[in-house]
Amino acid sequence: MLRTHTCGELTINNLGETITLCGWVQKSRDLGGTTFIDVRDRYGLTQLVLNTETNADLREAGRQLGREFVIKVTGKVLERSNKNLKIPTGEIEIAVIELEVLNAAKIPPFLIEDETDGGEELRAKYRYLDLRRNPIRNNLVLRHKMAQEIRKYLDRLDFIEVETPVLIKSTPEGARDFVVPSRMNPGEFYALPQSPQTFKQLLMVSGFDRYFQIVKCFRDEDLRADRQPEFTQIDCEMAFITQEDILNIFEGMTRHLFSTVKGIELSEFPRMKYADAMRLYGSDKPDTRFEMKFVELNDVVKGKGFSIFDNAELIIGINAKGTASYTRKQIDELTEWLKRPQIGATGLIYCRYNTDGNLKSSVDKFYNEDELTNWAAAFEAEPGDLMLILAGETDKVRKQMNELRLEMGTRLGLRDKNNFSPLWVLDFPLLEWDEETTRYHAMHHPFTSPKPEDIPLLDTDPGNVRANAYDLVINGTEIGGGSIRIHDRALQSLMFKHLGFSQEEAQKQFGFLMDAFEYGAPPHGGIAFGFDRLCSIFAGLDSIRDVIAFPKNNSGRDVMIDSPSAIAEAQMNELKIKTTVSVS
Amino acid sequence: MLRTHTCGELTINNLGETITLCGWVQKSRDLGGTTFIDVRDRYGLTQLVLNTETNADLREAGRQLGREFVIKVTGKVLERSNKNLKIPTGEIEIAVIELEVLNAAKIPPFLIEDETDGGEELRAKYRYLDLRRNPIRNNLVLRHKMAQEIRKYLDRLDFIEVETPVLIKSTPEGARDFVVPSRMNPGEFYALPQSPQTFKQLLMVSGFDRYFQIVKCFRDEDLRADRQPEFTQIDCEMAFITQEDILNIFEGMTRHLFSTVKGIELSEFPRMKYADAMRLYGSDKPDTRFEMKFVELNDVVKGKGFSIFDNAELIIGINAKGTASYTRKQIDELTEWLKRPQIGATGLIYCRYNTDGNLKSSVDKFYNEDELTNWAAAFEAEPGDLMLILAGETDKVRKQMNELRLEMGTRLGLRDKNNFSPLWVLDFPLLEWDEETTRYHAMHHPFTSPKPEDIPLLDTDPGNVRANAYDLVINGTEIGGGSIRIHDRALQSLMFKHLGFSQEEAQKQFGFLMDAFEYGAPPHGGIAFGFDRLCSIFAGLDSIRDVIAFPKNNSGRDVMIDSPSAIAEAQMNELKIKTTVSVS
Repeated sequence: MLRTHTCGELTINNLGETITLCGWVQKSRDLGGTTFIDVRDRYGLTQLVLNTETNADLREAGRQLGREFVIKVTGKVLERSNKNLKIPTGEIEIAVIELEVLNAAKIPPFLIEDETDGGEELRAKYRYLDLRRNPIRNNLVLRHKMAQEIRKYLDRLDFIEVETPVLIKSTPEGARDFVVPSRMNPGEFYALPQSPQTFKQLLMVSGFDRYFQIVKCFRDEDLRADRQPEFTQIDCEMAFITQEDILNIFEGMTRHLFSTVKGIELSEFPRMKYADAMRLYGSDKPDTRFEMKFVELNDVVKGKGFSIFDNAELIIGINAKGTASYTRKQIDELTEWLKRPQIGATGLIYCRYNTDGNLKSSVDKFYNEDELTNWAAAFEAEPGDLMLILAGETDKVRKQMNELRLEMGTRLGLRDKNNFSPLWVLDFPLLEWDEETTRYHAMHHPFTSPKPEDIPLLDTDPGNVRANAYDLVINGTEIGGGSIRIHDRALQSLMFKHLGFSQEEAQKQFGFLMDAFEYGAPPHGGIAFGFDRLCSIFAGLDSIRDVIAFPKNNSGRDVMIDSPSAIAEAQMNELKIKTTVSVS
Repeated sequence: MLRTHTCGELTINNLGETITLCGWVQKSRDLGGTTFIDVRDRYGLTQLVLNTETNADLREAGRQLGREFVIKVTGKVLERSNKNLKIPTGEIEIAVIELEVLNAAKIPPFLIEDETDGGEELRAKYRYLDLRRNPIRNNLVLRHKMAQEIRKYLDRLDFIEVETPVLIKSTPEGARDFVVPSRMNPGEFYALPQSPQTFKQLLMVSGFDRYFQIVKCFRDEDLRADRQPEFTQIDCEMAFITQEDILNIFEGMTRHLFSTVKGIELSEFPRMKYADAMRLYGSDKPDTRFEMKFVELNDVVKGKGFSIFDNAELIIGINAKGTASYTRKQIDELTEWLKRPQIGATGLIYCRYNTDGNLKSSVDKFYNEDELTNWAAAFEAEPGDLMLILAGETDKVRKQMNELRLEMGTRLGLRDKNNFSPLWVLDFPLLEWDEETTRYHAMHHPFTSPKPEDIPLLDTDPGNVRANAYDLVINGTEIGGGSIRIHDRALQSLMFKHLGFSQEEAQKQFGFLMDAFEYGAPPHGGIAFGFDRLCSIFAGLDSIRDVIAFPKNNSGRDVMIDSPSAIAEAQMNELKIKTTVSVS
């Protein structure tokens, strides 16, 4: 090795030793003839010192070092007079004996510090420099630790990691598939997997029993909503199990991760049915770090001549505790915020429970003090609280109220990133109606099994068929989801029929899986976690971008390597493809 | 869980317990009114018994079970009268109390046994059934264990696993890149990585110091030679190290794997220079399980009037010990084998050292007994040995002799799959001449550093510039290769120049890396192992196909899912591409 130690390990125990370090110049300062240089590597920071006792050439060389120069330095470990007890190496410094510049550095385009002055775009272009900053590097170290602990946990439970193929087959359902032309099979394409779903099910048919894989998946879709075209899943599947087994094992995995990586012991995860989550939070991924559950008010407020309530399918409210002091202006701003097209509420009704005990609503014309007292009772409101109410069509008003609840949770400081609130959401609907294509789609995917008692509803009331499907939600973010799968050919065919596949289409696309079901398929089910998202939650970040070493931007571009890019005519000829647009 | 135990764990210690198993019917036989059923899962095989003490309906149900039916069975653990001590569960059997068919099975298209009757194509189509067979499943279990042990070893040494992108940039060097059209960036393409080379170097520039990744890579090339379009690499890189450090750490990793996974303790790996490997074995990946080194004979045989030798650039031989008894016919067959176009030798000269002490060559006309005695001395031959000699142009004759040596090694039983002979090959040439393009190519890749003392030769004698490059060879197979990289912009530019890049091209394609070198790049180097190949060596297989769960065939097709395949017109329109061939 070029070095004897790293920049993070020398302490008072090494006093007097002659050591060699390698690293980057973090900063350098001259103080009355003495030059102090901080040298940095992945493990920490060590202070070098060149003073009057140092050879003059060496001192001059030290003074010439710029930020981010890569150096190799040999010296003697001395006790510092001016100790910095904040860092492990803060009690010592190195009296330089030899100094070698391994590589010079231009002045970096932004500060390589925990707080940098670089804008997002600049840092993306020089990602390799941004990765030098502690916060970003720490995210990737965290990610590594998490992956190691996941593998340890699953290996201990006899799970086998099996690599499934990346070059697979495009399906008509796969509108968001990336495709890959095959040179050896001209005119034909592979697709990149959106998930290894069918392969992991085949592994169950093969008897693998407990499979997992930490694996890249791909989706060619718009990248709003903090998504990436390539993302990483913790993909898992088990045979001969019930839903209960899966919930227990993967709750265990999540708890193991929190315990080993963050030192946090989580208690048993609560469970909630999808229908309840929608009713109480207007979301299938409620943020349960705070209560503020929806209060349904139809029985309380209808029939008093207020047409907005009287005509509404659903009237719901939340109790924003302690915000009765909100001014009219603040409430108006909130109303405007709710009216933005992304949310689309038509208006906000409120009722203040003033600290003096008076109730004051925005619809006093229709409701007297007694009636408002009933409201307050429904909300379990106390003096000082503010009741916020929306009315309209059920699905829409729940969505709007979900947004308002989250906003109020944020304003009230109830969404602390260091507080983790996991929740299992169970009994998802099997199908969901799609307005655009005017047909039902699989809410999870076509391989999810319906609850046996709901199968008769497939023909009569498909929207109300419940699935053996579950999501794991933490702090309002879905981090995993799965289901017990269909393992019977006839039921799988029926499912495809209800999804609008002809028998021929179903056979052409998924024949291999349905055939497999005829050769002894065991009952099975599984789950997949979004690993990027899980890492971002562990890192306390809102975006997944900084838990990924080389992420792409919102246009799916890597601005550092400038990709995607045009390819040579000759290469397209070899692949027997043409583009129908020209790229400058 | 549906079961209380697996089919591999019940022993005499469980006698009298009531247990539940799930699994596949391996076989079933009736013996005088008693039905024995072997039920199988991933963990083993357990015998069920239904006899006169069993309820009649249950006995009938048991008799109806076909091969590969999936069953759940509850019963009592009894001691067997007829014990099978070859399997862990062979001392017990289960008296069936309850039996449930979880799924029926059609008769499988081939036998699900260690030795099957299915042909390769049939087994590929029903890969999910082939994966049920012990030998194939064991390979994947082995692969899982190896990956776990690799991660443990590297994690312990502070390596961090970082995921690098799969959607990267195509380069003109990347004639074998798979490309992926981008929907969001019409007319532009990503490429799939042939290796994460540039990204791991950027991670070194970022200060990550010790990186690894077990990662899928892609190459769109002809699949002779047991290759796959997608393959897995153990990709590693380190900063602030010398070649010696890399050799030690990854020799350590290999030794750790052999020790923990196979229980084999390997001693220190020998090292050999590329030039010596070529001279002694005619190959940069010699199989060192056996000696049979080349003997150079120019000094011994030239000048005796035998024109084939006199005109040859190089005359080399091997001593095929103990084969003096080969008949003329056997030698003729060997000669014909050598003349096949794949090898292309023009003739084989031999000299028998008969057990009676006589020397008899195929060129007795030119060489007398005394001269043949000199030959024997050069070969260190003893009575009973056969000397086999080829002559011709150096590179060609070495290649031919390499083939002959390996063939003789096989014939003499010197290539035992359970004997492992690792070897480091060092000091590879930096460049190799390509007849087709009439220019030099990088032998490893353009980022490999030349030996500093050879840099001046770049202009005068490029073919003789040695690189800081090394391969790890086991049993004649290259399982890993790497180099100390260039970390200096000027040297990297010079390298691109010698590889025929214009300055503009180099900047366009690799500008991001060369720019990175200007912002403080540390000295670094690394290695990548072919994980599929390593697994196949551990599994004692000639092909990598059966250490991969879902491999592709020689045409790059997955015949199980029928991929690649044509995609819909609409999808191509969205991607702004067209194919220039039509697919039926």
